[in-house]
Amino acid sequence: MHNFVFHNPTKIIFGRNTIPAIGTETTAFGRRILLVSGTGSAEKNGILRQVRESMAAAGAQVFEHPGVRSNPVLSHVRAGIALAKKHDCEAVCAVGGGSVIDEAKAICAGAVVNHDVWKFFIGKKSITTPLPLTTILTLAASGSEMNSGMVITNEETRQKFGFGNKKLHPQVSILDPTTTCTVPLDYTAYGAVDAIAHVLEFYFTTKEPFTPVQDRLMEGLVINSMECCNRIMLAPEDYQARADLMWAATLALNGLTAAGLGKVGFPMHMIEHSLSAFYDVAHGAGLSVVIPAWMRWQLDLQPERLAQFAMRVFDCHDGNTAQRANEGIDRLEQWFTSVNSPTRLKQLNIPEKDFPEIACNALTLGKIWRIDGYDQDKIEAILRLANTAN
Amino acid sequence: MHNFVFHNPTKIIFGRNTIPAIGTETTAFGRRILLVSGTGSAEKNGILRQVRESMAAAGAQVFEHPGVRSNPVLSHVRAGIALAKKHDCEAVCAVGGGSVIDEAKAICAGAVVNHDVWKFFIGKKSITTPLPLTTILTLAASGSEMNSGMVITNEETRQKFGFGNKKLHPQVSILDPTTTCTVPLDYTAYGAVDAIAHVLEFYFTTKEPFTPVQDRLMEGLVINSMECCNRIMLAPEDYQARADLMWAATLALNGLTAAGLGKVGFPMHMIEHSLSAFYDVAHGAGLSVVIPAWMRWQLDLQPERLAQFAMRVFDCHDGNTAQRANEGIDRLEQWFTSVNSPTRLKQLNIPEKDFPEIACNALTLGKIWRIDGYDQDKIEAILRLANTAN
Repeated sequence: MHNFVFHNPTKIIFGRNTIPAIGTETTAFGRRILLVSGTGSAEKNGILRQVRESMAAAGAQVFEHPGVRSNPVLSHVRAGIALAKKHDCEAVCAVGGGSVIDEAKAICAGAVVNHDVWKFFIGKKSITTPLPLTTILTLAASGSEMNSGMVITNEETRQKFGFGNKKLHPQVSILDPTTTCTVPLDYTAYGAVDAIAHVLEFYFTTKEPFTPVQDRLMEGLVINSMECCNRIMLAPEDYQARADLMWAATLALNGLTAAGLGKVGFPMHMIEHSLSAFYDVAHGAGLSVVIPAWMRWQLDLQPERLAQFAMRVFDCHDGNTAQRANEGIDRLEQWFTSVNSPTRLKQLNIPEKDFPEIACNALTLGKIWRIDGYDQDKIEAILRLANTAN
Repeated sequence: MHNFVFHNPTKIIFGRNTIPAIGTETTAFGRRILLVSGTGSAEKNGILRQVRESMAAAGAQVFEHPGVRSNPVLSHVRAGIALAKKHDCEAVCAVGGGSVIDEAKAICAGAVVNHDVWKFFIGKKSITTPLPLTTILTLAASGSEMNSGMVITNEETRQKFGFGNKKLHPQVSILDPTTTCTVPLDYTAYGAVDAIAHVLEFYFTTKEPFTPVQDRLMEGLVINSMECCNRIMLAPEDYQARADLMWAATLALNGLTAAGLGKVGFPMHMIEHSLSAFYDVAHGAGLSVVIPAWMRWQLDLQPERLAQFAMRVFDCHDGNTAQRANEGIDRLEQWFTSVNSPTRLKQLNIPEKDFPEIACNALTLGKIWRIDGYDQDKIEAILRLANTAN
């Protein structure tokens, strides 16, 4: 185990009928609230109505900033910051999935400074003291509801960049699994893929001395993410399955899995971000293409660790280390296919001629994220594996 | 999954050479510090010297309250409160194992009120705003370093009572595994038993709908606690094994395992507390006697859950549900024996004639802890199983 600091102060309120707590929880930080939301589903299914009622009952003055897209864009963040400044907002409440929460975090950080918010993302400025943030999560996927990270796309430069700062933890997040019962099955699967990806990034980028406690935690989260997702595929409104997936996705990226792992990175996200920056691919769909390719590229580099994963997650006990490692990757890929998440770039209509540009974009992000060991050739090789493997 | 609130604001600083941070971390809350410690080991191995140096460098004025015993007693808590009041202490720093940290929590709570501190423990008064607490942990066992609970023994009434309040979370806990490298093997094993007990209490008192995410987390912690302990038995100064056990014990009772489990309880601790209140038995040693007996008493009540535990933790796949359930208990008991932790009351020299009085004492605690389903006969039956089973 490596030295670490773990400090996650976010309060989680989880379960049925928890949304009405949002007014009290948010006005604990001030009465002038910026309410950030997406493109309509939270409105349609009545969540925003509940939020407005709760805010009103708690005496809040609410200023609305709807319209956050998935893969949220910088121009919309800037508009939110302008609105928060105009109305002297004292806190922000995000209602939506990871995209809405990420944009809200960027607004919280940007509303208290005079420079452009993008400077945080390119490392030119440091986070000061953001506005307090509460959230109501409506999609099990990103983990943003209980972590300090955010990802925003600069649509001018086609850069999908992200970073974390401990001051960006939401103060309170409300997780009511019923809000996810209407999420379509494809996006439910993409959410599960995202949670699994978060675990695998750390599992396969940590170096010795390994942390057995974290290993079992991570393996359990992968098994659970798959099992819950399978239950949802059979019965989309199964509350318990939705609840299990929601909690697994939160734990998959709340800092706990990384504790003691030393320097870990997001090489699979580095590549996927370039896909979704260029093609507006759903993040989880991009990940289920990149993950098996990246893992196959790791076969020679860390066969024992891949074999441990295969044994503990998929009960692969036959054959030698390399065979087990291979089988684990195949089984994971088969699971992606079973929940209709793509596993080849062709399925995303991404042509081979674009690989150099994608790789170049990914490298730029890799430099900002300080991911070592990659160059243009290696990323193109992984992209080719994502096109042709098997 | 049941509804839950999870909020654990304790900052964990984990690893080698982390103790020198204690001065800065503690003086963030004030300069007048009550330093609470045990009966000598932290002095002998130089930890307290490091703490004093760090406190002095940070400009703290330190008032010392040493001499906390294992199974800490009320009279010593009261003396600590008097000292904290006399010197207007603004924060408390605990250096030791769970006993020292528990006593420090009681001092933090008692130092800000005018009534006797025991009133908290018998439910006559509520916690207000305790003094801030920092800790340096020197024993992997209780989890007190990252939770809101404390246990104190009233030596006059022979009541070993405990309870939790969210305001009792330490602000900062420093976990340097090297501090545990000199813990004797028997107490190391008792610590692992304690961690396992914390997991099992929740695992076997939760009711449907179960929480699969938490199940795998808990099973992983039990496996890890045993595996790390085995490594330590072979090489007591194995830093990595000490680190893994320390972190597993912290996670075993930091609120995370209980999230979503609904109403859980501590029936095994309820019984063990009466043993250690009467006989000054090491807590872990008492638990390794009570656990198999209590689990055998559960065989008819929750065979499926016991069988799941047996399958996932001990790979017991043969036989029917009842046989697997039984084998899991046997295997756990065998592991206790393998690390020289007792499994029968006779080994603790506790005579059968005392069972009624022990049961009566346990029931009193059970009422305060609101543990349903127990009476004098049932507890005596469990104690007889702890005497004679197999």
